[in-house]
Amino acid sequence: MPAYKTPLRDIRFLMNEVFDFNSHYQTLSNGEYADKETVDMILEGAADFCENVLSPLNQSGDEEGCYFENGEVKTPKGFKEAYDQFVQGGWQGLSYPEEFGGQNLPMSLNLIKSEMMGTANWSFQMYPGLSVGCINTFLQFGSDEQKKTYLPHLVAGTWSGTMCLTEPQCGTDLGQVKTKAELNKDGSYAISGTKIFISAGEHDLTENIIHIVLARLPDAPAGTKGISLFIVPKFLPTEDGGIGERNPVTCGSIEHKMGIQASATAVLNFDNATGYLIGEPNKGLHAMFTFMNTARIGTAIQGLAHAELSFQGALPYAKERMSMRALSGKKDPEQVADKIIHHADVRRMLLTQKAIAEGGRSMIYYAAQLADKMNDALLRGDTAAFEEHDAHLGFYTPILKGFLTELGFEAANHGMQVYGGHGYIKEWGMEQIVRDARIATLYEGTTGVQALDLIGRKVLLSSKGKVIRDYTAEILKFCGQHAPNKYMRRFAWDLTKLCAQWNTLTVRLMLAARKDRDIVSAASVDFLMFSGYVMMAYFWAQQAAIASSKLASGTGAEVPEFYKAKIKVADFYFEKILPRTQGHAESMVNPSKTMTSLAAEHFSFDY
Amino acid sequence: MPAYKTPLRDIRFLMNEVFDFNSHYQTLSNGEYADKETVDMILEGAADFCENVLSPLNQSGDEEGCYFENGEVKTPKGFKEAYDQFVQGGWQGLSYPEEFGGQNLPMSLNLIKSEMMGTANWSFQMYPGLSVGCINTFLQFGSDEQKKTYLPHLVAGTWSGTMCLTEPQCGTDLGQVKTKAELNKDGSYAISGTKIFISAGEHDLTENIIHIVLARLPDAPAGTKGISLFIVPKFLPTEDGGIGERNPVTCGSIEHKMGIQASATAVLNFDNATGYLIGEPNKGLHAMFTFMNTARIGTAIQGLAHAELSFQGALPYAKERMSMRALSGKKDPEQVADKIIHHADVRRMLLTQKAIAEGGRSMIYYAAQLADKMNDALLRGDTAAFEEHDAHLGFYTPILKGFLTELGFEAANHGMQVYGGHGYIKEWGMEQIVRDARIATLYEGTTGVQALDLIGRKVLLSSKGKVIRDYTAEILKFCGQHAPNKYMRRFAWDLTKLCAQWNTLTVRLMLAARKDRDIVSAASVDFLMFSGYVMMAYFWAQQAAIASSKLASGTGAEVPEFYKAKIKVADFYFEKILPRTQGHAESMVNPSKTMTSLAAEHFSFDY
Repeated sequence: MPAYKTPLRDIRFLMNEVFDFNSHYQTLSNGEYADKETVDMILEGAADFCENVLSPLNQSGDEEGCYFENGEVKTPKGFKEAYDQFVQGGWQGLSYPEEFGGQNLPMSLNLIKSEMMGTANWSFQMYPGLSVGCINTFLQFGSDEQKKTYLPHLVAGTWSGTMCLTEPQCGTDLGQVKTKAELNKDGSYAISGTKIFISAGEHDLTENIIHIVLARLPDAPAGTKGISLFIVPKFLPTEDGGIGERNPVTCGSIEHKMGIQASATAVLNFDNATGYLIGEPNKGLHAMFTFMNTARIGTAIQGLAHAELSFQGALPYAKERMSMRALSGKKDPEQVADKIIHHADVRRMLLTQKAIAEGGRSMIYYAAQLADKMNDALLRGDTAAFEEHDAHLGFYTPILKGFLTELGFEAANHGMQVYGGHGYIKEWGMEQIVRDARIATLYEGTTGVQALDLIGRKVLLSSKGKVIRDYTAEILKFCGQHAPNKYMRRFAWDLTKLCAQWNTLTVRLMLAARKDRDIVSAASVDFLMFSGYVMMAYFWAQQAAIASSKLASGTGAEVPEFYKAKIKVADFYFEKILPRTQGHAESMVNPSKTMTSLAAEHFSFDY
Repeated sequence: MPAYKTPLRDIRFLMNEVFDFNSHYQTLSNGEYADKETVDMILEGAADFCENVLSPLNQSGDEEGCYFENGEVKTPKGFKEAYDQFVQGGWQGLSYPEEFGGQNLPMSLNLIKSEMMGTANWSFQMYPGLSVGCINTFLQFGSDEQKKTYLPHLVAGTWSGTMCLTEPQCGTDLGQVKTKAELNKDGSYAISGTKIFISAGEHDLTENIIHIVLARLPDAPAGTKGISLFIVPKFLPTEDGGIGERNPVTCGSIEHKMGIQASATAVLNFDNATGYLIGEPNKGLHAMFTFMNTARIGTAIQGLAHAELSFQGALPYAKERMSMRALSGKKDPEQVADKIIHHADVRRMLLTQKAIAEGGRSMIYYAAQLADKMNDALLRGDTAAFEEHDAHLGFYTPILKGFLTELGFEAANHGMQVYGGHGYIKEWGMEQIVRDARIATLYEGTTGVQALDLIGRKVLLSSKGKVIRDYTAEILKFCGQHAPNKYMRRFAWDLTKLCAQWNTLTVRLMLAARKDRDIVSAASVDFLMFSGYVMMAYFWAQQAAIASSKLASGTGAEVPEFYKAKIKVADFYFEKILPRTQGHAESMVNPSKTMTSLAAEHFSFDY
């Protein structure tokens, strides 16, 4: 298993040179906390914790998995101790208000911390990660009383939280939720039903677990408009904020999964469990959507995390393993064969991983700034600003989640492939990354769901293509500014063509959808992937622009290779990866009549 | 886990309608054995065995895995009994000469049987599958004495065989093999060394295991020209053909792998084990290459096998699971939601699987006829014909192995994706298919190795592009014949354009390679994938041509839907999958200078 080494040079390149986080923080109401010194301390502290505590538990956690016995879940060896250190370090409260014990730092620092932790050990990161949705629900919809009771524990990390949405019969289609909530005499509710796939639903890391549960009131309308949110604590809190009576929400089993073995995925049975309504009745699904963007960005990080970790595993192997000779002649003449990094096809795989990891990181960090702005508006109570930033982020979200998790899985597979047959052997840890990465295109909305959200909701319905026109206008402006630079000409030219194509494709789909709405679904994943590749190209061009200006000005003179490498990887991305857009473009505008007209019973004639 | 149902309708469509196996068999010297009745009996017998014996052991075999203790390997529950049935059924000897107890049927029937067995249970199929290479070695290079001693047992299946090539320091680059062979006084050799990744290297299914081992004689030249082949039996055979003394070849451990858990992958230690030279000294690697094509076709089958099995798992789920409404309006209005098969994006995934499985099957069956011809020439002692057919098959081999295993993995992932979050849970069996499929792009030469074999050896070096000119000429002839048919016009047109493009790309790479040989490696996988997509398109067009002629002539009147579905899937392939060629085409001709010029130490600046 590759030991995680925090790519601090790249993180700082993005934070300090590409996106100027320092100036950005100064525009936020809580920005004063995030001075350069604090940020550095946090980056280095997180790196230390990830490299020395979390990374060593990644492979052992996979081997051992979680244990389930008599309704209780034991996490793998070392997880409890690591979690205690996480709590002691105050890591859970990084971006939450001081009044609940947090450090009031911008949300972006929390996302960057999550990236580091998730790359070091994705399974571990799931536990605190799930608390985030729960904490957000309290912050935005909780009564003062509810906030006071739960938030200090959740923000400290001594209690953890979950989001209980999925049931056996429904995941995406939450209108089918059946879990019931009936009013008790004391004003609380009796919650009954079964929830599945509850990450961190039961474990031994915290003294209490607070479930946010989607359920129906007796008189609720059918479908999505009849869902309410309830707080269902594992242990009911006592008046003084301590641990009270055990609530009848029990773990029926944990799933046996392909990967993220150290993350407990629980089946939870609510058997007249005591719950408390949070937010307005029947507005639960709407409330869920408030956090969907941030939750999905959290999952999008998984794409870059596994690309990064797999790259970190593959690179040293490629520099060490010797096989055959490079086609252009011996590179290690004194050895029996050349290191495989000298084979262009191996470089293709490594550079694809690197392009995905660093391209993905830049996309996430940009989105993290939007999350900061959104959160800042929330703190300031500026609803209009919140909605504006939320809408802006809402365009990025399905692309980041759908596209980056698909590419993260691809990158994980490249890393395994670099190892040849050894990649298939558990000992090396490369196949674990593939198994862990595979969940990312499934949870928090599958790739198909992201694709439909993008083309259906964000592009066609709510903006009639305006969102693409606006975004491409931004890219074209960038191209105009940078075209005179000889390093940038190629990028500007390709992006200009692609922006035109992106708009044309959008219009064609819009027109086609008038006659046949199924074409939107048929074309959706191609549209998502096309959009993702172009967006990542824009972010690579931005990195190249900074790198070339550093080289030109001589500011980067002490390590010119770093900037030169950035430009080469951008070149590689434009030359070898970006052409995939053309397959997606052609496929999405081809007719889909044949695929929608085949009768379900004629998909097969043998079974 | 999806229960395997043999797609006999599709198998018969290919055998009887598309490729006319009956007439083909009549051209073979052993074709008389393969009358229609016998072939039917074999197909149905194999289907029965696969569905009722092998398929039920697929998931339990994965859960249980193989046990290793004190140098011995125990296969999962039920494997021994199933293997005994396999031996009793005479399945191992299907295509081997009668003089060694075989049934002398054409090789293609053996490949089709392997497809069925491999789809039902790939791990099981590995055991008899590995014997094939061993049997072929004896048939072509064994002395009469060696054949008489080993072949009856191997052909019966009571003994099994392995191929011991890989060592810790080398897999692809067999010139690095270190295992030593020293002459004993009695004319045998003392073999010493370590071999890894030996599939079926140790197990409890047969009474003896015969290893074919690559090793070096003391005076052997360095590199690939100094490798010889040795027979190293686990138990030395006695004079009367029984089981004698235990040979010091011992299993040091078995690998813990991502998948194919029921297939034992052994580390074998040869500690002065007794071996017998087979074939000429120092010609071992050349001998290996003789069977490389058939071995690789055997692995190519894995691509279609896992595509088929995953499709069989995903289809019923898509017909049952209800979620959301189709964009074009309610399809199951009486239900709470529509079956997910009514979502165009789900259809896209299912049809991609189907197009890969059935397109892959047609490619394999065509190659199986070439294997028949090759084998027939071998039996007739016609070296010229053997070499001609081998060269012909040699063009298909890297495409089938490289392209189909990549697409098989993709298809397995689509099947898992159709299940949403449930796909990640072991219980359903869909993730096992992904894990099992993943090995296929690694062993028997990685995708990169196949790609270099295709572009380097087959296209540029040995034919200067002629192989592409000839093949596209064949496709263009087909297009000319079928263009007047209205169903076929679209296919003929697309193929015609792609043939021109394929030739142009080949010439461009040939010219570019003169200046920069690394470009061949840089472009190789793109070239392989481009070639695979065009080849599969041609095979889909052939299927559509037969289907449309059946519909036109009314011969297929009893089940016109089968033929209509074939045309629709061909349409789908051309509309939604074939466009991927354009991404590969653009990527392969883009300059690769940036990727080859990045210094190894500048791939990363943090680790």
